[in-house]
Amino acid sequence: MRLSILGCYSATPRALNNTTSQVLEISNHMFLIDCGEGTQVELRRHKIKFNRIKHIFISHLHGDHFFGLVGLISTFRLLTREADLHIYGPKGIKEIVTLQMKLADSWTNYNLFFHELTSHASELIFEDNKVEVHTIPLNHRIYTNGFLFKEKKRERKLNIEAVKRANIDVAYYRKLKQGYDVKNEDGILIKNDSVTFPGKKPKSYAFCSDTMFKEDIVPIIKNTDVLYHESTFLEQHAHLAERTKHATAIQAAEIAKQAQVKTLILGHYSTRYDSINYFKKEAEQIFKNVLLAEDGKTFDL
Amino acid sequence: MRLSILGCYSATPRALNNTTSQVLEISNHMFLIDCGEGTQVELRRHKIKFNRIKHIFISHLHGDHFFGLVGLISTFRLLTREADLHIYGPKGIKEIVTLQMKLADSWTNYNLFFHELTSHASELIFEDNKVEVHTIPLNHRIYTNGFLFKEKKRERKLNIEAVKRANIDVAYYRKLKQGYDVKNEDGILIKNDSVTFPGKKPKSYAFCSDTMFKEDIVPIIKNTDVLYHESTFLEQHAHLAERTKHATAIQAAEIAKQAQVKTLILGHYSTRYDSINYFKKEAEQIFKNVLLAEDGKTFDL
Repeated sequence: MRLSILGCYSATPRALNNTTSQVLEISNHMFLIDCGEGTQVELRRHKIKFNRIKHIFISHLHGDHFFGLVGLISTFRLLTREADLHIYGPKGIKEIVTLQMKLADSWTNYNLFFHELTSHASELIFEDNKVEVHTIPLNHRIYTNGFLFKEKKRERKLNIEAVKRANIDVAYYRKLKQGYDVKNEDGILIKNDSVTFPGKKPKSYAFCSDTMFKEDIVPIIKNTDVLYHESTFLEQHAHLAERTKHATAIQAAEIAKQAQVKTLILGHYSTRYDSINYFKKEAEQIFKNVLLAEDGKTFDL
Repeated sequence: MRLSILGCYSATPRALNNTTSQVLEISNHMFLIDCGEGTQVELRRHKIKFNRIKHIFISHLHGDHFFGLVGLISTFRLLTREADLHIYGPKGIKEIVTLQMKLADSWTNYNLFFHELTSHASELIFEDNKVEVHTIPLNHRIYTNGFLFKEKKRERKLNIEAVKRANIDVAYYRKLKQGYDVKNEDGILIKNDSVTFPGKKPKSYAFCSDTMFKEDIVPIIKNTDVLYHESTFLEQHAHLAERTKHATAIQAAEIAKQAQVKTLILGHYSTRYDSINYFKKEAEQIFKNVLLAEDGKTFDL
């Protein structure tokens, strides 16, 4: 699982501060999460192949989270993309994109699917045989979802020597990988764990931005490996967090602690502070394993 | 008159190629012309004061000419702008911007005026006591206007020594500046040009992008000081220019020659060429005074 931070600052793009966008590589997918203005240029800087992005998740319709979307969709067209593209985001996102296409008289030459979200309860919005994606209803000034990416249980690995020694027919290998006990050629039941190794532990990632402190999300993200939680403000500006429905670093850490995640990544910083290290210091008072998102940083998780 | 090129490449923004946007300083105005994705960041790089921009002209609704507009409007709001903002552009631009504001539940705290254009004839769209702006109907795949910025005739300057020698009352100075002959205190008619100097010659600038070769614009831009004309392609790709309704460098030069402008600036280059100097070389076969737009370049004209 790899997370590339294209942008992690709040409000407006600046020469050295990109607004929110990140790419999550998990189970062979490249999921684009949020798409602030300039995201397509950052994708190029990161040398991310545009064609590998097939699913884009938009948390909410504030500009710093999606003003780069329509440009990216247009660029895909100019690059003669053929692969399907799926957009998941709040109701209204389809109208925004299609209105601009209509007025430009330029439609996509690939299939573009919109999955508009309206539910205030967590829901499964994408699933294949390897991974599933659920919404995390957040509490911000407008309708907002975080996204939980969960690998499915990985298959067990065959201990080839043991399997052969146990005289098991090759036709049963698939069942063994799925965790079943099987009978060998002599009709004897072979315990699965005597001939297989555990599969890799499935990974999970939760993206929660933008939101004020919201304990209701804890059961949804419980035991997640990595939590990205917004921390727009430091404690001295807790009143601003309250007023603008954002979170402080300490609040992000409190959520991480309650949800017993392994790692907390902070981001969505206000640009008013002279160093983002303050965010880490404050969060570490509550939760130990804190990382700082930074534009251009890639986390191998 | 000063022209700052924020971006001058066609199609899609890249790490080293911005899409169309430029700032024209003329008669104390700062006019923003087109607004591709990332324009707000380029304005910061150029250290252009956001509050000085009060008029934005959008040529057409292809993304590389306006995808930065809604972000700039939002950023103005976040910076607590108070000054009025006027947007001139094709019909539909208001709906694009207001739809996104409505869905973000965030309105401007300054007055925002849309001047939607639909005419296929040149029209006066802005005027004050120093400058006027006219549309230049272009021929592209969708409804497109160029813009002609013309300073009004400048007032004559008083030759203070001569005025005093001629014994003219101070109450007539304004009339003298306007070019009238006046009577002096002894009742004698004083010829204007005996006591004044000519005012500075008014400057003019024509922005023509995107368009295919269109001779109809020649009378509108006749004798303009500076013509910015798109030249997306070199001659070897004249067939592409024809098909996509763009111009070649030679066609841009032909327009400059027919309109007898003083200076031609080329821009809106396709990124397929390894050097933009080819554009200058080709244009110079037809017209002598050719300059090349480049991202980040400022022309003092």
